[in-house]
Amino acid sequence: MGKLRVGIAGLGTVGGGLLKLFADPAARLNEKLELVAVSARNRSRDRGVDIGRYRWFDDPVELAAQPDVDVVVELIGGSDGPAKRTVETALQRGAHVVSANKALIAVHGVALAELSEAKGGKLLFEAAVGGGVPMVKALKESVAGCCASAVAGILNGTCNYILTEMESSGRSFEDVLADAQRLGYAEADPIMDVGGFDAAHKLTILSAIAFGARPDFEHVRIEGIERVSLIDIRMAGKLGFRIKLLAKGASTENGVEMHVRPALLAFDHPLANIGGSLNALVVDAEPAGQLTFIGRGAGAGPTAASVAADLIDLAEGRAGFAFGRPLAQLTSAPRATPVERGRYYLRLMVADRPGVVAAISDRLAHESISIESFLQMPAPEGPAVPIVLTTQTCPREAVEAAVAAMQALDVVVEPPYVMPVEVSGARWGRG
Amino acid sequence: MGKLRVGIAGLGTVGGGLLKLFADPAARLNEKLELVAVSARNRSRDRGVDIGRYRWFDDPVELAAQPDVDVVVELIGGSDGPAKRTVETALQRGAHVVSANKALIAVHGVALAELSEAKGGKLLFEAAVGGGVPMVKALKESVAGCCASAVAGILNGTCNYILTEMESSGRSFEDVLADAQRLGYAEADPIMDVGGFDAAHKLTILSAIAFGARPDFEHVRIEGIERVSLIDIRMAGKLGFRIKLLAKGASTENGVEMHVRPALLAFDHPLANIGGSLNALVVDAEPAGQLTFIGRGAGAGPTAASVAADLIDLAEGRAGFAFGRPLAQLTSAPRATPVERGRYYLRLMVADRPGVVAAISDRLAHESISIESFLQMPAPEGPAVPIVLTTQTCPREAVEAAVAAMQALDVVVEPPYVMPVEVSGARWGRG
Repeated sequence: MGKLRVGIAGLGTVGGGLLKLFADPAARLNEKLELVAVSARNRSRDRGVDIGRYRWFDDPVELAAQPDVDVVVELIGGSDGPAKRTVETALQRGAHVVSANKALIAVHGVALAELSEAKGGKLLFEAAVGGGVPMVKALKESVAGCCASAVAGILNGTCNYILTEMESSGRSFEDVLADAQRLGYAEADPIMDVGGFDAAHKLTILSAIAFGARPDFEHVRIEGIERVSLIDIRMAGKLGFRIKLLAKGASTENGVEMHVRPALLAFDHPLANIGGSLNALVVDAEPAGQLTFIGRGAGAGPTAASVAADLIDLAEGRAGFAFGRPLAQLTSAPRATPVERGRYYLRLMVADRPGVVAAISDRLAHESISIESFLQMPAPEGPAVPIVLTTQTCPREAVEAAVAAMQALDVVVEPPYVMPVEVSGARWGRG
Repeated sequence: MGKLRVGIAGLGTVGGGLLKLFADPAARLNEKLELVAVSARNRSRDRGVDIGRYRWFDDPVELAAQPDVDVVVELIGGSDGPAKRTVETALQRGAHVVSANKALIAVHGVALAELSEAKGGKLLFEAAVGGGVPMVKALKESVAGCCASAVAGILNGTCNYILTEMESSGRSFEDVLADAQRLGYAEADPIMDVGGFDAAHKLTILSAIAFGARPDFEHVRIEGIERVSLIDIRMAGKLGFRIKLLAKGASTENGVEMHVRPALLAFDHPLANIGGSLNALVVDAEPAGQLTFIGRGAGAGPTAASVAADLIDLAEGRAGFAFGRPLAQLTSAPRATPVERGRYYLRLMVADRPGVVAAISDRLAHESISIESFLQMPAPEGPAVPIVLTTQTCPREAVEAAVAAMQALDVVVEPPYVMPVEVSGARWGRG
């Protein structure tokens, strides 16, 4: 059998990393695959590797249409536009596709998997989630004999870097974000990352595979880290928690629940110590028990390594279904609104007047919510005083009702901020 | 295509877990595989599952010889005897084998892989290492496009349980071991576990796959945890370290180096917080970066889950070579004696006399070893006083020479105990 002929569409950071891997004659990649064609926006940019030996295409769709390209690696990005057309063109003619594009797979994964099944080309996307960490393969193949009940991950390196930096340097969200943008760790328009959408794309993919359900991005409840303040980070620390942007999916009797939101993790939570740009995934599956996977979540090397693993799977005939099983076997999970119970963190900004604490406590008591801990900021910086508290286990609904009542108090000067408290592994806290 | 017909040889803890998985009609295992035959020492033992519907064999070798058994699952254990004959019999006739037997694979892996390649039956053994943690697949497939330079793991749950319990309960090695034996966590003859041999079998397998080298169990340098005392655990804790039985393999310019031995891990080492019966593996690979895998290292459920993943890989046609590539491509690593450098921990029992510290310091200075920290036990319990110290980075040879010189001092009342100090990930400390 001849070598699989590969075309790369997109030569940015990850594409550059993949070029370097192909340029290494000792790399295992070259034993069974051969890079033959490339496409990018700018042909002349210096990528540290000579691309003159590969066929060049200005248009990635044209590359994808070449009959002698057996595998198209899509590293363009974006859920629509040229990335989608490139992948569709390749799959339509029965070629294989390896993609690092989480938005594309999360939003159009079902249609693309259909095309893959109909035409016979495989669709792989290990690099779309968790950078160099083999989360997709672990869920598709290693947990295959198990029943997964929950996944929880730190899936966005930019948010994790910002939260880690805020904690260690004591600088504000805005300061750290601006720095991250200068250093190239965050996009000029950071909304995809800090708004939680990138993590939600990844969670959509992982949940689909873990729970054998059709990917359903629209169903992820998404909250970003924009409202997390230094006060929250410090107060949470005093209470024994670290704030992380947590992406969680659970398979329940009501269907699949998916959340991306900032949460307080107890210091001994398996995800609490995942710092900086690391990514991690915790899987709860029976009878395997809890599994944790940690590694670099982004960057040229790690992501290219995941693309390479997919390419070798293709070359060695190991590639299976896009989501681990045939589309026809994936359930269409009902979108029930989950009945959420747990412990919650509340931060309130209040006027420094007698009776404030009594008024707040009263609103909680009215909803039968017990307070677990209560902290007042030692040195307030303005006219409003921050108060934080954590509740004992209670329904989320009760917290929402209490918060609405507090907001009506004239001593509460801005909308209270609520985050869930996570005490154990991937399982949802249900009291 | 019909279902793959499975025979299980050995119905102990793991076999029982696998029986339960096959008994669950909803389990994915049953979609493509069918359990048809079983063998064990005792037919009538209650396993919580009716085995009457499966064909029974008193002799596992006879089960392995049945032409209508497509896959033989070997859960007998032991590097020789019936386990080896069972696996050989199956492979000889071209049947597939799934084994949880680390001793067998570590010692006879090359010969069995040869038989597998010659006759066409696959040989898989995810369950032989790390219980439910997919370490074998990760190294074979996910790191396939990378160059792995080092692996480091906590691979023996019994040792990890004992060390964790000693630290948390303040009880001695002997006490905790006796308890573990009563609870069934440790064998009546614990030497395979506490002597480091079980971890060495597993390290042999992981190193072979990670570094593309023939498994070479005889080359692992093995030291057990029998000499680790409560003093060591307490003193290490004061210095910022936790003692773990560490299994490490590295690919160096001199070949593959493999060690199993107790070591001091800095609290922020990725393996320092792996407690109790958990197993974990850290892999250093370029360009993926450092990857960490954590989960339950033993027990019916986790180990059966790994057997099931191998069975599904077989059924879905994904199973590759035993060690990730053809035997002919595995190097025969030279067995160079490594030149080891690093930081070391020394515990000395000395007579409480003036000048002792000066004499010890002198022996270290003579070998040009600088002391990094020095602690004397606050309340000695006998006539001899424990002194512990850590060195700055120096050659292991120099430490050995200094220790030999110390032993000649009449104030040093027992042979000094030396352990390496690990400060970072999987890479060997080389100063």
